[in-house]
Amino acid sequence: MESLGMSVSVDSAGNLRGLHQGLHQDAPRLLIGSHLDTVPCAGAFDGVLGVVLSIAVVESLNGRRLPFAIEIVGFSEEEGVRFGVPFIGSRALIGTLDAALLEKKDAHGRTVAQAIRDFGLDPSRMSEAILKEQVLGYLEFHIEQGPVLDELGLPLGVVEAIVGQTQARVSFRGRANHAGTTPMHLRHDAVGAIAEWILAVESEARATPGLVATVGQMETFPGASNVIAGEARASLDVRHASDAQRTAGVDRILSAAKDIAERRGLKFECSVTEDQQTVACDPNLVLAVEKAVAHAGFPLHRMTSGAGHDAMILAQKVRVAMLFLRSPSGISHHPDERVLPDDVAAAVNTGLRFLEELEKLHA
Amino acid sequence: MESLGMSVSVDSAGNLRGLHQGLHQDAPRLLIGSHLDTVPCAGAFDGVLGVVLSIAVVESLNGRRLPFAIEIVGFSEEEGVRFGVPFIGSRALIGTLDAALLEKKDAHGRTVAQAIRDFGLDPSRMSEAILKEQVLGYLEFHIEQGPVLDELGLPLGVVEAIVGQTQARVSFRGRANHAGTTPMHLRHDAVGAIAEWILAVESEARATPGLVATVGQMETFPGASNVIAGEARASLDVRHASDAQRTAGVDRILSAAKDIAERRGLKFECSVTEDQQTVACDPNLVLAVEKAVAHAGFPLHRMTSGAGHDAMILAQKVRVAMLFLRSPSGISHHPDERVLPDDVAAAVNTGLRFLEELEKLHA
Repeated sequence: MESLGMSVSVDSAGNLRGLHQGLHQDAPRLLIGSHLDTVPCAGAFDGVLGVVLSIAVVESLNGRRLPFAIEIVGFSEEEGVRFGVPFIGSRALIGTLDAALLEKKDAHGRTVAQAIRDFGLDPSRMSEAILKEQVLGYLEFHIEQGPVLDELGLPLGVVEAIVGQTQARVSFRGRANHAGTTPMHLRHDAVGAIAEWILAVESEARATPGLVATVGQMETFPGASNVIAGEARASLDVRHASDAQRTAGVDRILSAAKDIAERRGLKFECSVTEDQQTVACDPNLVLAVEKAVAHAGFPLHRMTSGAGHDAMILAQKVRVAMLFLRSPSGISHHPDERVLPDDVAAAVNTGLRFLEELEKLHA
Repeated sequence: MESLGMSVSVDSAGNLRGLHQGLHQDAPRLLIGSHLDTVPCAGAFDGVLGVVLSIAVVESLNGRRLPFAIEIVGFSEEEGVRFGVPFIGSRALIGTLDAALLEKKDAHGRTVAQAIRDFGLDPSRMSEAILKEQVLGYLEFHIEQGPVLDELGLPLGVVEAIVGQTQARVSFRGRANHAGTTPMHLRHDAVGAIAEWILAVESEARATPGLVATVGQMETFPGASNVIAGEARASLDVRHASDAQRTAGVDRILSAAKDIAERRGLKFECSVTEDQQTVACDPNLVLAVEKAVAHAGFPLHRMTSGAGHDAMILAQKVRVAMLFLRSPSGISHHPDERVLPDDVAAAVNTGLRFLEELEKLHA
């Protein structure tokens, strides 16, 4: 970014920020970027590709000034691996990286504040990271991390919403008993009940367009091969772009669980641990991204993001949009994570066309 | 036992043995008893009740000598909790507590041989525990540890066989993926596949009289709420009194697993860890126990034992029979394990009648 003549700084939350000045000193600001971190044992493109791509977009301006400034942001901590809280960098920009969050501890007992100090920054100056200028919006470039674009054979996807999600823990409680001495008709097997429910979750999601529902974690108690399980617990993850559809889906899934438990003589319990609403991208920015994709000569595809992104956090304060790049085979958070060079070129080209669209609007 | 004039000893495997002499010095010997150990956090009756009951039967002879001697055996280590190998005491009586078994280690690295020495016994004299005398048979008294007699409202059950069992570990391997970004139709969800299979296991067992099949333990990988499971593993326990029915049931269950895996695009693997054949009780001894139950005035009920017992091991060398006592609500290996006093009286009475039956046969 320095070689492109940008002013580069690291803010007090560790976000890398580079400013390409606009035509005027008081020009509004467009944010573009993504995050710099990823998960352990990950690939090379999640997050950081979006930052590098943003730099390539500014580079392709060849020093040309626009009626707005462009600030590239490489967010510092999006995944939430270390402290169990995602989006720390983007929270700083909208002023929600507060004292409580700064006191969150990692597995070794070090707080966010200490980690920031260890890195040579000053957490007491956190408010300096907050966006103060007039911001036109934020465009995030990101690999899809899913198989949709690859299945459709498309290089790019225009995100119109980041879907809401329900996270819950469920438990079926039956009666543990001897696997050899208890006839089938006298069992209250928690594993049988949860298996029936898992298939109901799957059917429900398959029957509702756009709904995804996942039981990713499950455990049995006492968990011995020769003991009928007295209890089985599982996680539930439900997502849909429509909050109404999502909550209706969750209701049907939990109602199925109650029916199954009652019919089999078990107890069912559920605790909802997260209920995150869908975040819509800004319709005008989405339209500008679509025009850019079209002008760059690529087919249009609107889609939702099933995963959370910094854009979801920034949306509390600024208008946001996202451009997805195809993830071959949908693989991400894995060393096999890839991206096609032609798709990266398509995204850079689209980024440049997007700037031209905004230029028209703010000329 | 000493107060009843019996010769009491502890053999080199820690079995408590008490001899009630027969009419003649060279009279054959009848073994009666059960085991002295149980599992952690267990009840008060599993095993030890059968030993106390045996003593009560001898006591009720009031010193009378029979044409055969009676040896009460309180087996030392039936459950296999400490060393992962059950039936250590009964193996000693038939000579299969060998050097390899003596070298098995507990969780702290102490061997069976060391544990025997710690107890003040000499493992090098193990062969002295082997049955040498002419043995008429072994009658074991035991709580049912299942709900069958309680459901039928019967105090006693005559065991005709200890059912065989297959133990296996299965694995369904699909593809781990993001729970938010992977549409339902592009998933290869190991949890969905194993859930479908668990219901197939249940259906198979319900459709086959006498078959019990249990998935008691299950785990998912990576096991995160927001990741579609790439692998799910489970235990399988299948039992039936008929070995042919059991193996046919296992075949159908594994065949269903392969179909489910293939249809869903997953890989299925199975490794059989145990294949124990059914052990039949001796028909003549079973008949004698039945006559005893009838003479004592109780209704007859023949049944199989779904759990393994020392009688199963002794059957390799001697004729065996078992008498079950009702387990209220089928609860066992739990502090709530109970037995009804009237049922214990019925079993003592039956034991005495059984001795009378044998007396007739060996007069």
